[in-house]
Amino acid sequence: MSDTNPTADAPRSPGRPRSIRADEAIIEAVLDLLAEGSTIEALSIEAIATRAGVGKATIYRRWPGKDALLLDALRRLKGVVAQPAGHSVRDDLVLLVGAVGHNIDPRAERIMPCLVPEVNRSPDHFQLYQNIIEPRRKIMREVLRRGVATGELRADLDIEVAMALLTGPMLVQRLMRWHPELDDRLLPERVVDGVLDGLRAR
Amino acid sequence: MSDTNPTADAPRSPGRPRSIRADEAIIEAVLDLLAEGSTIEALSIEAIATRAGVGKATIYRRWPGKDALLLDALRRLKGVVAQPAGHSVRDDLVLLVGAVGHNIDPRAERIMPCLVPEVNRSPDHFQLYQNIIEPRRKIMREVLRRGVATGELRADLDIEVAMALLTGPMLVQRLMRWHPELDDRLLPERVVDGVLDGLRAR
Repeated sequence: MSDTNPTADAPRSPGRPRSIRADEAIIEAVLDLLAEGSTIEALSIEAIATRAGVGKATIYRRWPGKDALLLDALRRLKGVVAQPAGHSVRDDLVLLVGAVGHNIDPRAERIMPCLVPEVNRSPDHFQLYQNIIEPRRKIMREVLRRGVATGELRADLDIEVAMALLTGPMLVQRLMRWHPELDDRLLPERVVDGVLDGLRAR
Repeated sequence: MSDTNPTADAPRSPGRPRSIRADEAIIEAVLDLLAEGSTIEALSIEAIATRAGVGKATIYRRWPGKDALLLDALRRLKGVVAQPAGHSVRDDLVLLVGAVGHNIDPRAERIMPCLVPEVNRSPDHFQLYQNIIEPRRKIMREVLRRGVATGELRADLDIEVAMALLTGPMLVQRLMRWHPELDDRLLPERVVDGVLDGLRAR
């Protein structure tokens, strides 16, 4: 892969090395095509190459195939994973719930919901989608386990159900604008406090 | 609207009156076109008429316009609204949470997620979507208010947040198959008990 080494690109143009510009143009092309309504199935290396203004070989030198490229492109939508401070379980959960469904790229709003039915029809694509969300899920699972260990959370906590209780409300609100009366900015604290304390009168 | 009266249809064919068959063919045409990937915007009365094998006038005799027809078609996906028994707040919530994201028509799985970004771009369509879900939301709100009144639920309950806590986990699981390790059939009880009791150690 000599062209991942910028010194191999001649003549050098100013700004970023050509190989990095090509990477970004390819990722951008994938996201643009998906945001314009292309299904994963219809997305071809050829269409991506044309859109990015590169040759197909340039794509295959960087990614082994469409799925690996898609994984990188979809991860780009979501930005870096939030890292909890590790002091208070409640505060860590507020941070993590605040990051649920948060995308750094506005194209995500068009891409993500429509991906759902397609992902559910293909085991390979479902795995791809799980690969994107599992690193985030793992961090929340660790915070909940810590809470059980320190005695802040119930000893009999079902961790997977607890993650659904914390994540679901934020995800439907962010992704689907499910409930017009809820304020997205205040919701992470309200969800975490509501789920921690419970609705039942004591 | 003489053709809504079956006696006006001559000759009578066996089975359902022709006017009811036309209604159903029109609704079916809308759902088929949406399930095949048509956006609400691209959906035209002309395309619906062609697909249903009726004239455009037949559609306009029954519905004042596309939005009213869409509302009927999307309601059809969801079936009748669950009616809680009114004895135990917990049992009523299990019933209502079990109905969240439940569609009687398999086309819903393709139609509903992709509708989300489109609905969010158009205030009219957002209102249409709210008109579909508001009757269901109203029933849950009433159960929660009853729980506050009877003292089963906290007196300071934020009803709208509580609805998000109960509905969100089930909706992401049903609509997005968000979490492969959760069993959809057991989830309504687990969600309700988890949210009522809270995660915090006592």
